[in-house]
Amino acid sequence: MISALAILSRDPGSQARAGVLRTAHGEVRTPAFVPLATKATVKGLEPRDVAGLGYDMVLGNTFHLFLEPGHERIARFGGLHRFMRWDGPIITDSGGFQVFSMGHGTVADEIKGRAPQGADRSGAILEIAEEGVRFKSYINGDERFMAPETSMEVQAALGSDLALVFDECTPFHATRDYTARSTERTHRWLRRCLDWHAEHGPPEQLVFGIVQGGVHDDLRRESTEIVGTSEVDGVAIGGSLGETKAQMHEVAGWSTQVLDEVAPDKPRHLLGIGEVDDLIRGVELGIDHFDCAMPTRIARHGMALVPDPERRWRVDLTGARFKDSDEPILDGCPCPCCAAGFSRGYLRYLLKARELTGMRLVTLHNLAFVSRLMTDLREAILQGTLREVAAALRTGAAPGLSRSAA
Amino acid sequence: MISALAILSRDPGSQARAGVLRTAHGEVRTPAFVPLATKATVKGLEPRDVAGLGYDMVLGNTFHLFLEPGHERIARFGGLHRFMRWDGPIITDSGGFQVFSMGHGTVADEIKGRAPQGADRSGAILEIAEEGVRFKSYINGDERFMAPETSMEVQAALGSDLALVFDECTPFHATRDYTARSTERTHRWLRRCLDWHAEHGPPEQLVFGIVQGGVHDDLRRESTEIVGTSEVDGVAIGGSLGETKAQMHEVAGWSTQVLDEVAPDKPRHLLGIGEVDDLIRGVELGIDHFDCAMPTRIARHGMALVPDPERRWRVDLTGARFKDSDEPILDGCPCPCCAAGFSRGYLRYLLKARELTGMRLVTLHNLAFVSRLMTDLREAILQGTLREVAAALRTGAAPGLSRSAA
Repeated sequence: MISALAILSRDPGSQARAGVLRTAHGEVRTPAFVPLATKATVKGLEPRDVAGLGYDMVLGNTFHLFLEPGHERIARFGGLHRFMRWDGPIITDSGGFQVFSMGHGTVADEIKGRAPQGADRSGAILEIAEEGVRFKSYINGDERFMAPETSMEVQAALGSDLALVFDECTPFHATRDYTARSTERTHRWLRRCLDWHAEHGPPEQLVFGIVQGGVHDDLRRESTEIVGTSEVDGVAIGGSLGETKAQMHEVAGWSTQVLDEVAPDKPRHLLGIGEVDDLIRGVELGIDHFDCAMPTRIARHGMALVPDPERRWRVDLTGARFKDSDEPILDGCPCPCCAAGFSRGYLRYLLKARELTGMRLVTLHNLAFVSRLMTDLREAILQGTLREVAAALRTGAAPGLSRSAA
Repeated sequence: MISALAILSRDPGSQARAGVLRTAHGEVRTPAFVPLATKATVKGLEPRDVAGLGYDMVLGNTFHLFLEPGHERIARFGGLHRFMRWDGPIITDSGGFQVFSMGHGTVADEIKGRAPQGADRSGAILEIAEEGVRFKSYINGDERFMAPETSMEVQAALGSDLALVFDECTPFHATRDYTARSTERTHRWLRRCLDWHAEHGPPEQLVFGIVQGGVHDDLRRESTEIVGTSEVDGVAIGGSLGETKAQMHEVAGWSTQVLDEVAPDKPRHLLGIGEVDDLIRGVELGIDHFDCAMPTRIARHGMALVPDPERRWRVDLTGARFKDSDEPILDGCPCPCCAAGFSRGYLRYLLKARELTGMRLVTLHNLAFVSRLMTDLREAILQGTLREVAAALRTGAAPGLSRSAA
């Protein structure tokens, strides 16, 4: 099997690598961040905006698109690329995360180690069985069923370039015993997904397996080996990575250590992780691509990314102290928001008034910020300066600004 | 007084004229439609988008900006142009329409001849007096006061290129007697606005008076003469124009007939009118610029403008019949939505999911449609073909398409 990933350079001081992932719809420069196009759109942006920010690939959501508008409908439109007018690479997640999040509070809560928030939701898991998962649609309450084969069938219909296998996303609060049994089921489902894809899947579609195993060293390493040595094109690291950032980095590292041995050339995706320090650490650990709702979601709530490690690289633009601020989000930032001169005061006003343009402008800024961060990291690997660049970024250097100034 | 409007061509078969309105922030090609930037933003768009659609001027709202973020704050930012990063001409309405709409159901209902809908609203008029209007803010319930001088002071602080005087917007259901007395007060307020502006207003700011008089021929003509012969730079036609389109066109025509006699060179604005047939008729009646919430507001509710006079030039994209439609909103349309190939089916899906991108894309289409319509009308006046062009547009020719095909 020829690897879809051409590794151009490896960092001598870490596991990091820079390369190019080749897909049926073009190349992805790695390491890369992948913006979410959950419901066939990066919220508030057009495809031309996303490409203009330097992104090669977006991530669509199998679960949501299965429910609405339905994969058969999207297939009639010629697939997800044509439907949403994005002609670059698309990765689709498998729906496992979303299906299981209906059963365990939100999986996002679980993954962050928070107790379930018990929000009212019309969707709910009805049954988890070996065959698959029965659940109620959050759209209309209809009973639906998703098996590993369903997920692959949906992703085949969507025509994504990278499909993820259907997994059971084990919650953080699960016991070790539950996690072990759940992980074994994930491996059986991996087999079913690969079998389905070999027989029915689009030949040009890459398939990524998903590593589970909770926060247990042996389970994670075993899962990584099983997934990494199967006939997958790439490996995604999923599930709960722990309660703290240190634990998250450690757990992800277990997988990439094993992968460095058993599948050194296969591309690796870290699921749902995208804070600035996590991206830097993930790159050092040898992750090739990441997706996360954070940059776009926090933007719609008025939070902008800034080079401020003390405050999780965020500033809350809705704060009263910005009422009269004529400063841009970030001095010298070349994003469409800062470069046009929109002030924090104006953005605060728009965000408080829930104006669409405010959400759009901060989304553009945040995605531009992360795009420059990934470009900095990639360039540093190619130039052998990752150690210095990562250190500078961690202590608050603004991504891309030294580069654009040079 | 030198007219701000340079008339380049007059249509021999109607009152229509094409020209250039000169303002402190540049020129406006007339006849023109003016998109609403009510709260210092064209909802969902950036200024570069609006300019890219061919618009020279936008309209900001004195009433809303007075309440939030406040004109003093905007002045500290250097004025509305700098605050919202629009460096072209800006017209600000006076706030009269909005203040009075709190007292009479919505004025929009009134102007369309509908009964008040009695929607729950926290804002309310407390007192209408000769001095001005006391009302409760819809933002926080605070008691506020707006007099003619307040409106001019706010507009001076905003630094708009065209200010409108403060008027009493007489509702449709008012009696003739009330309308007559109200119109007289509007004239006294015009005098106070002009006096305030002469002493305190920015010298480069143009001031437009507002004609009232309801649907009464003699009151309208008298109001037009009083406003048109005062030292205003331009004349806006406001208030209720009647219950039907025929009446609206007749009432607007009374004013432009009088203006053709008493102030033929002064620019004329028709307030709050923007349906396709109304724009065509308005241009024939000698209106130079129009504003209206319609194209942007209906876009956010999923309605797109199309050359279909039978259906008020609209198509409701949320209709179930578009679920599988791979057609663009309008074949051959050069707008950013149609040109990128977004289908009605995809837009329907986005709109039903309340996705921001859906609202943005239809807004871009609608404003592009109206921009091409106005360009067609202007070119026709300049080339002496208004009669044919207007007839074609009325019967369903797509604006701009024959031109772009030629």
